[in-house]
Amino acid sequence: MELITLAHGSGGRLSHELVEEVIYPIFNNNGGQDLLDAAVIPVPVQPGKLAMTTDSYVISPIFFPGGDIGRLAACGTINDLAVCGAIPKFMSVGLIIEEGFPIRELKQVLHSLADTAAEAGVSVVTGDTKVVEKGNVDKIYINTAGIGFIPPGVNLNPQNIKPGDVVIVSGTLGDHEMAVLSCREGLSFGIEVVSDCAALNDLTKCLVATGAVKCMRDPTRGGAAASLWELAGQSKMTIEIQEAAIPLHPSVAAGCSMLGLDPLYLANEGKLVIIVNPEGEKEIIARLKNHSLGRNAAVIGKVANQDRSGKVLLQTALGAKRLVTLNEGEHLPRIC
Amino acid sequence: MELITLAHGSGGRLSHELVEEVIYPIFNNNGGQDLLDAAVIPVPVQPGKLAMTTDSYVISPIFFPGGDIGRLAACGTINDLAVCGAIPKFMSVGLIIEEGFPIRELKQVLHSLADTAAEAGVSVVTGDTKVVEKGNVDKIYINTAGIGFIPPGVNLNPQNIKPGDVVIVSGTLGDHEMAVLSCREGLSFGIEVVSDCAALNDLTKCLVATGAVKCMRDPTRGGAAASLWELAGQSKMTIEIQEAAIPLHPSVAAGCSMLGLDPLYLANEGKLVIIVNPEGEKEIIARLKNHSLGRNAAVIGKVANQDRSGKVLLQTALGAKRLVTLNEGEHLPRIC
Repeated sequence: MELITLAHGSGGRLSHELVEEVIYPIFNNNGGQDLLDAAVIPVPVQPGKLAMTTDSYVISPIFFPGGDIGRLAACGTINDLAVCGAIPKFMSVGLIIEEGFPIRELKQVLHSLADTAAEAGVSVVTGDTKVVEKGNVDKIYINTAGIGFIPPGVNLNPQNIKPGDVVIVSGTLGDHEMAVLSCREGLSFGIEVVSDCAALNDLTKCLVATGAVKCMRDPTRGGAAASLWELAGQSKMTIEIQEAAIPLHPSVAAGCSMLGLDPLYLANEGKLVIIVNPEGEKEIIARLKNHSLGRNAAVIGKVANQDRSGKVLLQTALGAKRLVTLNEGEHLPRIC
Repeated sequence: MELITLAHGSGGRLSHELVEEVIYPIFNNNGGQDLLDAAVIPVPVQPGKLAMTTDSYVISPIFFPGGDIGRLAACGTINDLAVCGAIPKFMSVGLIIEEGFPIRELKQVLHSLADTAAEAGVSVVTGDTKVVEKGNVDKIYINTAGIGFIPPGVNLNPQNIKPGDVVIVSGTLGDHEMAVLSCREGLSFGIEVVSDCAALNDLTKCLVATGAVKCMRDPTRGGAAASLWELAGQSKMTIEIQEAAIPLHPSVAAGCSMLGLDPLYLANEGKLVIIVNPEGEKEIIARLKNHSLGRNAAVIGKVANQDRSGKVLLQTALGAKRLVTLNEGEHLPRIC
């Protein structure tokens, strides 16, 4: 078996062999459960809440500096659960593969997904494989859905946001989109930019334990601007941020100024926007700086005391104030 | 808004508008939960088990006699949960849409998905939308993942299968694949064949309540042959079936003989293969015949008393016996 054929999606012998010989062994090491059409999962006895999420990944190219579509598919779904305060536990994997796709690359991508999930303590419990004719999908698209358990007492919600709360980002912004952009277009801006693609559930667990986190978002498509815009709208609070306080990798800063991009709108795959009560700020920053995924964390703003119009205001490096809204137009397609 | 553009997948203003104005209203009627990136779901207090499943739907054409890709995406995932004995409860929806896809058709497909889920008592709680450039996906692919609760005491497992058990199908075989094939190729075999695409969870609940069901499968890709082959392999029992006992729609029978297809290998989207203990056979058949989705149910075979080699034997209408294995080659691509 070297290339994926339509017969691998037929439900017949070759489908069965692909699942049994290629896919099953990669995920079977990851949690010890059988990979069935529907997985049966014991529910923990303590009462609590489930979190459920899904994302499809259509990134191009499928291998990029700092990751690949498999790692991204694991991280993205884990992070959507983690920012709800959930402990991610179970994941499904749906593959849509182009006829002719090399099985070697399929294995590479799935190993990457399986390893990332396993490191994060997440079991891949069920999956599905479809094959479509050449030209009807670009190499491989992956959907993952995830289930997590929200511990009793954890309730992260934009409604918790109050005037005076502090706005923190867990590190440099824009690394993922700039890494994909530069490898896609063959651009270079000094030191190579590497995607920040990472599973954040260990970090979020450590932050939530302080009791100081009001709400979190992982700023993917649309960037930190979209996350802040949503949080402001949902809480009806005005968020004020300082452009000069936003941590940036030097090459992302260079790339943005060369290409006329705003790093606030660039996608991240391993960063948090965190709203924290002011008393907890020091402890949160200390925990972030002490974690490998939060070393470059910074306070970038606060929730306004007076203005409750639900908008985001940016004080630029030159001292002007401007409104942060959602980006117009298409930006870079297929970054995740 | 008439056609989907890349900007609808950007994470910016148009993405937000698509979700808020088109997608959210369709699903918000369906369970009363907010459609968030990750949904928070209360866990029922009684101990029990969760079932989780996923499938991607890449069917072509997206509208076919008896259904569309939206209805299929709801039914397929509901049925994967139902055959485990689970009560399907929550669903995620991941869309991958081609640039230029008409928003009118998107709405039609999503309404169909939402209505089917609602009728089956399933809430669509979370979702994701990606847009890719024209030519990198064929119109729209949909992934759904589902969660169900397995009531205490329910344990449907091939290990339960014992010699003497009865093999039942819930109705005519092959309707879905023949309907797709005939509309794709413009073929006609007498009365129009309509896909059997339907949510089976009400029927399965009613059957499981008898206590007589050992194990069930929904025979989709690969047909009843693949389901029986898997059950025989997993239970290490030999299953003997009678070709003459298999219920067939007259047009499916005509199409199969004209095209040289075996209905046992054709995909279904609203049928069950059920293994039942012999004492429960009458009650199960009565309940099937009494349900709109089981009217043409029939006993098609039994589990052999002696032979435990884990194979499937078909007694043909002419009296010969042949081995049923998985289909070779590609069959019809993109039937689900």
